[in-house]
Amino acid sequence: MKAMLSAALLLILSAGFARAQDTGGVRKAIEANNKKFIEAFNSGDAAAVGGMYASDARLFPPNAQRIDGSQAIQGFWQSLINAGVKVVRLETVQVESSGDIAYEVGNYTLTIPQADKEAITAEGKYVVVWKRQGPNWKLTADIWNSNKPAG
Amino acid sequence: MKAMLSAALLLILSAGFARAQDTGGVRKAIEANNKKFIEAFNSGDAAAVGGMYASDARLFPPNAQRIDGSQAIQGFWQSLINAGVKVVRLETVQVESSGDIAYEVGNYTLTIPQADKEAITAEGKYVVVWKRQGPNWKLTADIWNSNKPAG
Repeated sequence: MKAMLSAALLLILSAGFARAQDTGGVRKAIEANNKKFIEAFNSGDAAAVGGMYASDARLFPPNAQRIDGSQAIQGFWQSLINAGVKVVRLETVQVESSGDIAYEVGNYTLTIPQADKEAITAEGKYVVVWKRQGPNWKLTADIWNSNKPAG
Repeated sequence: MKAMLSAALLLILSAGFARAQDTGGVRKAIEANNKKFIEAFNSGDAAAVGGMYASDARLFPPNAQRIDGSQAIQGFWQSLINAGVKVVRLETVQVESSGDIAYEVGNYTLTIPQADKEAITAEGKYVVVWKRQGPNWKLTADIWNSNKPAG
């Protein structure tokens, strides 16, 4: 009986330890994903960017309708790649996770080419909800908006 | 031994059932919270609105800097209440949860009074991350943007 209790206690403690370790691991995995996102985007590989989203993911671009599904999301990013947009920075501010769901708070910087003058720099903030599927964390809800006053 | 296995199986099955039930319960709790949010907001009770956020919550208003903490968030909503803004609708599209974290996808409709003409209707989409604290689900990340083309 005592051995069983010890075994149970060990199981509970190691589960707790695994969870504690996991939180740092989730943030690291998400930051590594963001690096991959920037590389894929800036090299013009919209398919690789789209593949980072869950198949039923949702994208929430400002001043446009919601976009549902990774195929349509890939099309959205393709149009920005075609327009010459570059991702300068995705800065992770906070990650919290519970089981297979995590959310990330961050800041972004983009450059957007202009027809007749220098490219403009766009800065804003985002929330991404990530979902663990097998060994990978996939974006499942991706929403952002500008820090700059409208006008 | 057989009895122990049966007991273990029952425990696993009821845990699974509790989790399945819980998902619907989380959505119901969040929809009830949204109803309370609208009532508090439209009656001008910014303190009640602010109290629905976790103390370390973050708000992401479009075209403005991120706002951290429920006190500052209350101040933001107070300024919109003072400007005569009304929340017409918060429509929950999707809720998923894992343990004490849930995220909600939705659509909003607001009315914003204008100085010299009829109030305008603003429509958009949002993602809210909710965190369970004791018996309550609190908003912990609240971000939205407009469906309307910029201009």
